[in-house]
Amino acid sequence: MTHPLHPSAVVGVVGGGQLARMLAQAASPLGIDLRVLAGARDEGASPVAPTVRGDIDDPAVLAEFARGCDVLTFDHELVPVPTVRAVEAEGIIVRPGANTLARSDKARLRADLADRFPFPAHAIARSITDVEAFADSHGWPVVVKAASGGYDGRGVHVAHGPDRARVLMTALEPGVPAVVEPVLDLDAELAVVVARRPGGEHRVYPVVRTVQVDGICHEVRFPADVGPSVEAEAVSLAVAVADATDAVGVLAVEVFVTGGAVLLNEIAPRPHNSGHWTIDGAATSQFEQHLRAVLDWPMGSTEAIAPAAVMLNLIPGDPPADPRDAVSAALDAGDVRVHVYDKTPRPGRKVGHLTAVGDDPVRVRARAVAAAAAMGSITAGGAP
Amino acid sequence: MTHPLHPSAVVGVVGGGQLARMLAQAASPLGIDLRVLAGARDEGASPVAPTVRGDIDDPAVLAEFARGCDVLTFDHELVPVPTVRAVEAEGIIVRPGANTLARSDKARLRADLADRFPFPAHAIARSITDVEAFADSHGWPVVVKAASGGYDGRGVHVAHGPDRARVLMTALEPGVPAVVEPVLDLDAELAVVVARRPGGEHRVYPVVRTVQVDGICHEVRFPADVGPSVEAEAVSLAVAVADATDAVGVLAVEVFVTGGAVLLNEIAPRPHNSGHWTIDGAATSQFEQHLRAVLDWPMGSTEAIAPAAVMLNLIPGDPPADPRDAVSAALDAGDVRVHVYDKTPRPGRKVGHLTAVGDDPVRVRARAVAAAAAMGSITAGGAP
Repeated sequence: MTHPLHPSAVVGVVGGGQLARMLAQAASPLGIDLRVLAGARDEGASPVAPTVRGDIDDPAVLAEFARGCDVLTFDHELVPVPTVRAVEAEGIIVRPGANTLARSDKARLRADLADRFPFPAHAIARSITDVEAFADSHGWPVVVKAASGGYDGRGVHVAHGPDRARVLMTALEPGVPAVVEPVLDLDAELAVVVARRPGGEHRVYPVVRTVQVDGICHEVRFPADVGPSVEAEAVSLAVAVADATDAVGVLAVEVFVTGGAVLLNEIAPRPHNSGHWTIDGAATSQFEQHLRAVLDWPMGSTEAIAPAAVMLNLIPGDPPADPRDAVSAALDAGDVRVHVYDKTPRPGRKVGHLTAVGDDPVRVRARAVAAAAAMGSITAGGAP
Repeated sequence: MTHPLHPSAVVGVVGGGQLARMLAQAASPLGIDLRVLAGARDEGASPVAPTVRGDIDDPAVLAEFARGCDVLTFDHELVPVPTVRAVEAEGIIVRPGANTLARSDKARLRADLADRFPFPAHAIARSITDVEAFADSHGWPVVVKAASGGYDGRGVHVAHGPDRARVLMTALEPGVPAVVEPVLDLDAELAVVVARRPGGEHRVYPVVRTVQVDGICHEVRFPADVGPSVEAEAVSLAVAVADATDAVGVLAVEVFVTGGAVLLNEIAPRPHNSGHWTIDGAATSQFEQHLRAVLDWPMGSTEAIAPAAVMLNLIPGDPPADPRDAVSAALDAGDVRVHVYDKTPRPGRKVGHLTAVGDDPVRVRARAVAAAAAMGSITAGGAP
C-alpha cells in the first residue's frame, strides 16, 4: 500500500473496525488519504487503509498519529474523553470534539439534556440503593444500563428484583454509573442519522426503524412506517440534539416510540449501524457524508434512491458460519448488496451486513432475508 | 496493507490504472482479495490494492502473478494475445480469454465479424496503396485508425489526401495494420455495456450516448435519447457481439448511428469509460458486475436508479489543474459523485470523473458541468 500521491485531504480515524473500513472505502474515490490508528485487536479496516497500531488511551500516541492529518475522527466512542481534551488542547482538530463524545455516555447525556429533551423516566444509579429508590416509585422490573462501555446489548439488562439488580450494579466497571429505566412497552425503536458541519449546517437522513434482538441490531428498515407526525417529531428531536451536543460529522440519534410519544434513548457521534443502508440506498452514504462534514466540505443529498430498503446485519450463529464463504450464494438467493468486514466470525458478532433496495417493502425484505439465510446469519430468522 | 484474512475469492488484475482502482474499490465490500500486476508507469490502482510491478508481456511473469488467484482479468488490452494464450495453456483461468481479447484489435474484429455484423464501409490497410484503393472507391477524406494500441484518440486520424495518408501509414507500429473508413456523418455515438458469465448468461446496461472530442470521451449521457428502435437495435447488436466473441466479464460495444443505421465501431472487453456512470447511477456498478461475471457468480441488476445520469471525465487543460485540489469546490458547485484516480495531472489526460444523477436530464447535466468547471476540467466546456 502506498499513499495517494497528492491527497485532497488527510483524515485520521481512531479505531480500526468496520466503520473505519467503510470510511476508507468512501474516502478512496474522493482522493482522501484516510489513515487508521487501531487498537491491538481491531479487525476490519486494515485490509483497506494504512493502519498503525497503538494505545488509543494515550494522548501522546494520538497526537503523534494526528501529525499530518487535517482532522481526527473516530470509529467508536472508546477513547477516554480526557484524552480527547488533551489532544484538542494541543491544537489538533478533532471532530466530533470532546464535548460531543462525552454525551455518548448515557448518564452524562441525561444529566446534560433531560431538562430540555424528552427521555423515558430514569435515574442515574451509583449503588443498589439508587436502583431500589427508582423501583420504589416505578416498580419492578427495571432496565439497568451501564452508562458507557456497552455495545451490541452488552451492559443492558433487565432486573426483576433487588437481588439481580445488586449483581448488575456490582458488575459495573469502577466509576461507571448505571442508568435505570422502567421496562417500556415500545411501539417502535427508530434511528435518525444527522450530518452536521462545524458551522451548524445539517442534513438529515430518512428516519428508519431498527429491530433489536437481545439488544443487538438485527435489522434496519426504511421507511420506518410510523406515520408522518412521529417521523417529524423524531427528526426535529434529532436535529435539536445535534445542535445541543455541538455534533460535527454524523450523529445517530436513537429514539423510543411509546404510547405515541418520542423519547430520546441514546446517541452515537459517528457513522452508525442504523445508517449502513445509506451506502446502497441513499444518494450519499453516511460514510462519505461523515468525511465531508468533518472536513467542513459541502454535504450531499440524503435522499433515498428508492421507496424501500432493508439492511440485515450478518451475524453468525453457533457454530459460526463465515459469510465470506457464501457471498456468491447470497447473490444467488436475492438481489442484494453485500458488505463483509474481514472479521473473524464468532457467534453473535456482526461480521458484515447486506442491503436490499427496491419499490415494495415486503419483497425487498424477502430478498434480504433470503440472502442472509444463504449466509447462515441469525438475522434471517424473521424478526417481526 | 494486509490481505483480507479469509477472502471470498482472489482476483488478479493485469494493469494498474483507474479501471483496476475501481475494480479494487468494488472488490472490498464483497471480501474479494484483488491483486494488481502493474506496468512500470501505471498509476491509480496502487493506493487501493496490493500491487506488484512486472513485465506484463512475459508469460512467466503473468503465470507467477496468477498463482493463488481464482481468475486473471485485465485493466486494459495491452497484453499481447500470444502471451495470454501461453498463460491459458498452463491451465490458468483468464477472463476474458485470448479469443475475446484478440477482437479488441479493430482489424481482427472486422476480419472475423464483418460477414455477420453491420460495420461502416472499411478496408484493412497495410500500405498506402491499400488506403488509396479505398479512397478511389469511397473518396477523400478517409479516417485512418491504427488497428491496435490506440486509445483516447491516439492512432485515429483523418487524411484529406494521399500525402497525409502516407505519413499516417508510416507512423504505424511495425506489423500493425490500419482500418480505413469514410468520414461518417454521425447522428450519435452510443455504447452498450454487456456483462456475460462463462455459460453465456448476460445482463445489459442501459444504452448511453458518448460525446467524443478529438477522439477522447468527454461525456456519457443516460438516457441516450435516440429513440426506442435504435436503442433496441444497439442492444441486440451488442448482445450478439458478446456471444460471437465469447466475452466473459464486462464488454463495452461502441456503435455509430448514421442515417438511422446502427453500425459496429469497436469493442473493449473490460469495464469501460462509458460505464463509469453505473457506479453511482445503476443498481450494480460495472466494476462489481465484472468481478461477479469473471468469478462466475450470479450477476446483479443493471437498472438505472434514476431517470437521468451524466458522467463527465475530469481532464485537465494546459497548464493542468489538479482535480484533487478542488474536490470540495466541485461538491459545492453541484450535487455530484466525484471519483479521482490518483494520477498525475497532465493536459488531456483522464485523471478522474464525476457523475450527476437525478430526474431531469438538463438539470442533471448542469450540475455535472458546474462541478467539472470547478475542477478546471476541459469537459466543462459544453460539448453539444
